[in-house]
Amino acid sequence: MPASAPTARTRVRRAPKRGVYDREEIDAILDEALVCHVGFVHDDQPFVIPTLHARVGDEVYIHLSSASRLVRTLSGGAPCCLTVTLLDGLVLARAAFLHSANYRSVVVLGRARAVGSEQEKLRAVEAFTTQLVPDRWEQVRQPTRQELKATQVLALPLDEASAKIRRGPPLDEDEDLDREVWAGEIPFHLQPSAPRADPRARRPIPVPDHVANWRPGARPAT
Amino acid sequence: MPASAPTARTRVRRAPKRGVYDREEIDAILDEALVCHVGFVHDDQPFVIPTLHARVGDEVYIHLSSASRLVRTLSGGAPCCLTVTLLDGLVLARAAFLHSANYRSVVVLGRARAVGSEQEKLRAVEAFTTQLVPDRWEQVRQPTRQELKATQVLALPLDEASAKIRRGPPLDEDEDLDREVWAGEIPFHLQPSAPRADPRARRPIPVPDHVANWRPGARPAT
Repeated sequence: MPASAPTARTRVRRAPKRGVYDREEIDAILDEALVCHVGFVHDDQPFVIPTLHARVGDEVYIHLSSASRLVRTLSGGAPCCLTVTLLDGLVLARAAFLHSANYRSVVVLGRARAVGSEQEKLRAVEAFTTQLVPDRWEQVRQPTRQELKATQVLALPLDEASAKIRRGPPLDEDEDLDREVWAGEIPFHLQPSAPRADPRARRPIPVPDHVANWRPGARPAT
Repeated sequence: MPASAPTARTRVRRAPKRGVYDREEIDAILDEALVCHVGFVHDDQPFVIPTLHARVGDEVYIHLSSASRLVRTLSGGAPCCLTVTLLDGLVLARAAFLHSANYRSVVVLGRARAVGSEQEKLRAVEAFTTQLVPDRWEQVRQPTRQELKATQVLALPLDEASAKIRRGPPLDEDEDLDREVWAGEIPFHLQPSAPRADPRARRPIPVPDHVANWRPGARPAT
């Protein structure tokens, strides 16, 4: 897998030792995230909107409603930024100042391409569905031509992408280590509860494996 | 609590029935989120950066490293956008096209003010600590003047804020209800695992209640 070379814009400046430009790491973070935040500019005002995404090869598809301001702005080729953040835990230091979070994040800069062909939109809808729930695509009703028409998809290349990762215990100064304060990490993860069947269901349908066994980050690599 | 009047910029256009402008709801979402995404523009390029935040009254404090591009851009009063998203579950429809997520998100637009005084920075560091781990502030070493100097904080007013919420089951068309497909929701939440003590600890310190009982969203309202 080729590395994304850091440009002056993606080089991680704030904490350089946390910067990662390896495509395999970048892809793993993008693939595990269930939601992304897309940044764009409209009338000099930056907007940051949460939406669904799915990486396919060297691009990230971004899922949009056709009416949205985001589509109108970005399908014209305006610069945008896609960021995903996986929060892995909290870092509890002895010093208030050094409290932090453990996380893995990816920032992708670039100009998005509006996906036009029905065939590629279909591939994108499959990718969005699989990103949320692996093994579901084959089970559900496929999109009609009208639904594909109503689906607006952008594709953002991964040419200018970087990851930033913080792992591990707090970084207290040596002189604070003798304090009588518990310090360490609280790790956490997304935990599914029991699935809730749609109350409009005509009859009970057993919960299938792809729902019963769902867990975050279980998507197969592409 | 006064409502944030929707402006032309914050009015939720994409799915108007999901828009919420009630300050109590907006505050609850901001207060539960452990991380925010801040959008700003630098050389015509939008950037979206994850960072820590904490609401105090009618402003949101944003935590930044002093070296960051974000500080240099935003402390000059440039327009920015702060977005938080709480992902509550997945929505599994019978139609691929209607798969979605349940979430609560807030978008705040405005210009941030750089927090200058030591006293206000101290209040902000307390708020950041409490946002992550309630009841911890009193237990840890307070910031030194040098640490406060190194802490860059922005304050963004909540004048122009809106929330967007999706809850509930999938919205399949009536003609799809007879399909032999399980449909419904997979709810999830952040689940803490056992806390990990800092390996540099000089001696074992019992896990305090504020760590053992930590759960997301337990922060007291301010």
